[in-house]
Amino acid sequence: MREIAVIGIGAGDPEQVTMQAVSALQRVDVFFVLDKGEVKQELVDLRSEILRRYAEDYRVVVGQDPERDRTTTAYVEAVDDWRRRRADVIAALIASELGEDQVGGFLVWGDPSLYDSTLAILDDILARGELAFEVEVIPGISSVSTLAARHRVGLNQVGRPIQITTGRRLAAGWPEGVDDVVVMLDAQTAFTEHLDQDADIYWGAYLGTPDEILISGPLREVAAEIEKVRAEARDRKGWIMDTYLLRRKRWEA
Amino acid sequence: MREIAVIGIGAGDPEQVTMQAVSALQRVDVFFVLDKGEVKQELVDLRSEILRRYAEDYRVVVGQDPERDRTTTAYVEAVDDWRRRRADVIAALIASELGEDQVGGFLVWGDPSLYDSTLAILDDILARGELAFEVEVIPGISSVSTLAARHRVGLNQVGRPIQITTGRRLAAGWPEGVDDVVVMLDAQTAFTEHLDQDADIYWGAYLGTPDEILISGPLREVAAEIEKVRAEARDRKGWIMDTYLLRRKRWEA
Ligand SMILES: C[S@@+](CC[C@H](N)C(=O)[O-])C[C@H]1O[C@@H](n2cnc3c(N)ncnc32)[C@H](O)[C@@H]1O
Ligand SMILES: C[S@@+](CC[C@H](N)C(=O)[O-])C[C@H]1O[C@@H](n2cnc3c(N)ncnc32)[C@H](O)[C@@H]1O
Repeated sequence: MREIAVIGIGAGDPEQVTMQAVSALQRVDVFFVLDKGEVKQELVDLRSEILRRYAEDYRVVVGQDPERDRTTTAYVEAVDDWRRRRADVIAALIASELGEDQVGGFLVWGDPSLYDSTLAILDDILARGELAFEVEVIPGISSVSTLAARHRVGLNQVGRPIQITTGRRLAAGWPEGVDDVVVMLDAQTAFTEHLDQDADIYWGAYLGTPDEILISGPLREVAAEIEKVRAEARDRKGWIMDTYLLRRKRWEA
Repeated sequence: MREIAVIGIGAGDPEQVTMQAVSALQRVDVFFVLDKGEVKQELVDLRSEILRRYAEDYRVVVGQDPERDRTTTAYVEAVDDWRRRRADVIAALIASELGEDQVGGFLVWGDPSLYDSTLAILDDILARGELAFEVEVIPGISSVSTLAARHRVGLNQVGRPIQITTGRRLAAGWPEGVDDVVVMLDAQTAFTEHLDQDADIYWGAYLGTPDEILISGPLREVAAEIEKVRAEARDRKGWIMDTYLLRRKRWEA
């Protein structure tokens, strides 16, 4: 039976790879990569560096990533449709490039469990019933864990919950029932919508990479600085990946 | 200046240690451990195994963990008080056992950012102003990432938030505004309070260890089985560590 390893590779530092991931990287015969035709050459380089350091005797097969409809406001439908078309591409690659007794591999940024579509795509393909394979998932260090580590903070306050959400949702309002909110996928600096909150922010960009930037402090005091630094960095590099923790202070227990 | 490395060691499998953690383990001169006088001998063994495999030229210094008041209902105060007394013990150990140019180490279960008090204790000690040291945090694979990987699921639905919370809080009600809830520190099988929900559960105990148990399915159908398996496992081993994802199905976008 074919086997597919979905390998979390950490958020940007090749040293974040686990021993388990190294063993998996060594077992993979064929790595599948979707070419996003993107400017983020450094991310492509990071993946190559990880393969160079840890993998052995492998081939890399590159498929064409389908375009995602970014014009529509129907976010979930657009993502679902995009995922289906990615499943078509990947199913064809697996069928043509992976031998019946071989191991295929997908490298996933951070941890495969957080805002990543690889597992859903593989489920889609399996559900179609035309291909059979075993899936093994190797957890990775997420950008969220990296953010907390670099700022040397915990994500939760004692006995309290944490919410992980998107910039799009944070822009729509502070989430109910939580004081600690981690925000990912934020292209709109949604924290600037919450300057009325008595909150601290712990912000990080390009975490784990040589370009890492960290800013923290009372949200009202540092929001403008983060906006400025973020815009400059994005202009300079052509892309940005950032995430942050918002921590509202609790005065009661 | 003294340096303290807070090292995430993964949720139970020594292979979950990262390359970065291995480098940190090698640099540490003195590991600090609080003896919880506990039955969880396997957890003590796992820590020893990690040191044996990856660390070099080190000493282990064991302090006496203060008793936590588990009788009170004032959870946050009890934890705060306990943390302060732990800070007393650890400050004394650092002062007496760690040379001015040495590196101290704390091994943290899973990821240091999730429901762990090590960073808060070190902050407490620094705030007292009697000891100075640099803190470096090495992120680890959390039990949450491990749970998701072993069940081969993502934590979030497309574009949706995730809440991470405690059994105590889940027992008080399903959290507002989220359909995907990860529950930790649940000694009361709080999922049984939510059989009215149209939800799936992905449950895991002793994740990453040879005793790992995984059960998943529609909450109503598998809740009784999980309760039974959990009680038996806890009786057999004398302790249990489990965590789970509850996923409420969405019919709208
Ligand atoms: C599609 S999600 C993938 C998340 C990934 N699976 C993880 O575990 O970190 C991409 C988002 O993750 C965050 N992110 C990923 N890598 C990052 C990094 N190195 N620095 C800062 N944020 C990062 C950003 O919020 C970005 O928008
Ligand atoms: C004090 S918290 C520490 C969490 C840890 N820092 C982490 O990142 O996983 C302990 C809780 O974590 C969860 N946990 C930790 N290790 C686990 C394991 N190996 N299997 C299942 N649950 C685990 C359980 O919910 C347990 O009550």
